[in-house]
Amino acid sequence: MAASSHTDDNCIFCKIIKGDIPSFKLIETDAVYSFLDIGPIAPGHALVIPKYHAAKLHDLPDEHLGEILATLKKIAVAQGVENYNILQNNGRIAHQVVDHVHFHMIPKPSDSDEAGLVIGWPTKKADMDDLKKLAEDIKGKL
Amino acid sequence: MAASSHTDDNCIFCKIIKGDIPSFKLIETDAVYSFLDIGPIAPGHALVIPKYHAAKLHDLPDEHLGEILATLKKIAVAQGVENYNILQNNGRIAHQVVDHVHFHMIPKPSDSDEAGLVIGWPTKKADMDDLKKLAEDIKGKL
Repeated sequence: MAASSHTDDNCIFCKIIKGDIPSFKLIETDAVYSFLDIGPIAPGHALVIPKYHAAKLHDLPDEHLGEILATLKKIAVAQGVENYNILQNNGRIAHQVVDHVHFHMIPKPSDSDEAGLVIGWPTKKADMDDLKKLAEDIKGKL
Repeated sequence: MAASSHTDDNCIFCKIIKGDIPSFKLIETDAVYSFLDIGPIAPGHALVIPKYHAAKLHDLPDEHLGEILATLKKIAVAQGVENYNILQNNGRIAHQVVDHVHFHMIPKPSDSDEAGLVIGWPTKKADMDDLKKLAEDIKGKL
């Protein structure tokens, strides 16, 4: 089955893959497509997407996951970046804007909040007994 | 080659994999180890790490990337989360704290900044000619 056999005619990323919308393409294989983000938060901000259309990570069949991380890595290596974030958002409240799975490779040029991903990390003190119960609960559903 | 043949005796995550430091383990395979973050920013905040010790994504050989995304997906599915972020940080200024590649699966329970990943997105207006040149430059190095 060609990866492109599962597409959504209304999806902007499916249109980019098909070439109906132009993009600054970096890499294309049978399974993935990679291009520069045109609303970059740092120079070199790139996206890697599976050709198979799926809104969220849990909708994407495992056989379409295989080349994504290697492609992100390749783009980081080509740019020679040492500091960067790999980010994939699922759901509007988690900052997902386009409903086609996409992984960001975002260089972090300095520790300034003016470029690159800005991260807030609201850590809570965790109760070890609660974590133990939660781990058992999740394992029971795996 | 066993994945565990490449370890760092001073690495806290290598010690967790070996069992020298306890963890709330979720999944273990020949290639990856997954456990709950003990400083969670949301309930269900989990980590997936390759058993092969590498500090940053670009240090990790491709053959050790294969099971990571499928494992993150499995943990999201088991928890039934619809809104979540997948995050992997490289470098101190990019928020990396432990120098062993780790992927976060962070549920986003609501749009509040009090739990889950808080994202700042300093988008700059991009010049299309600059992006075109940058894409050509990166492609030349791929």
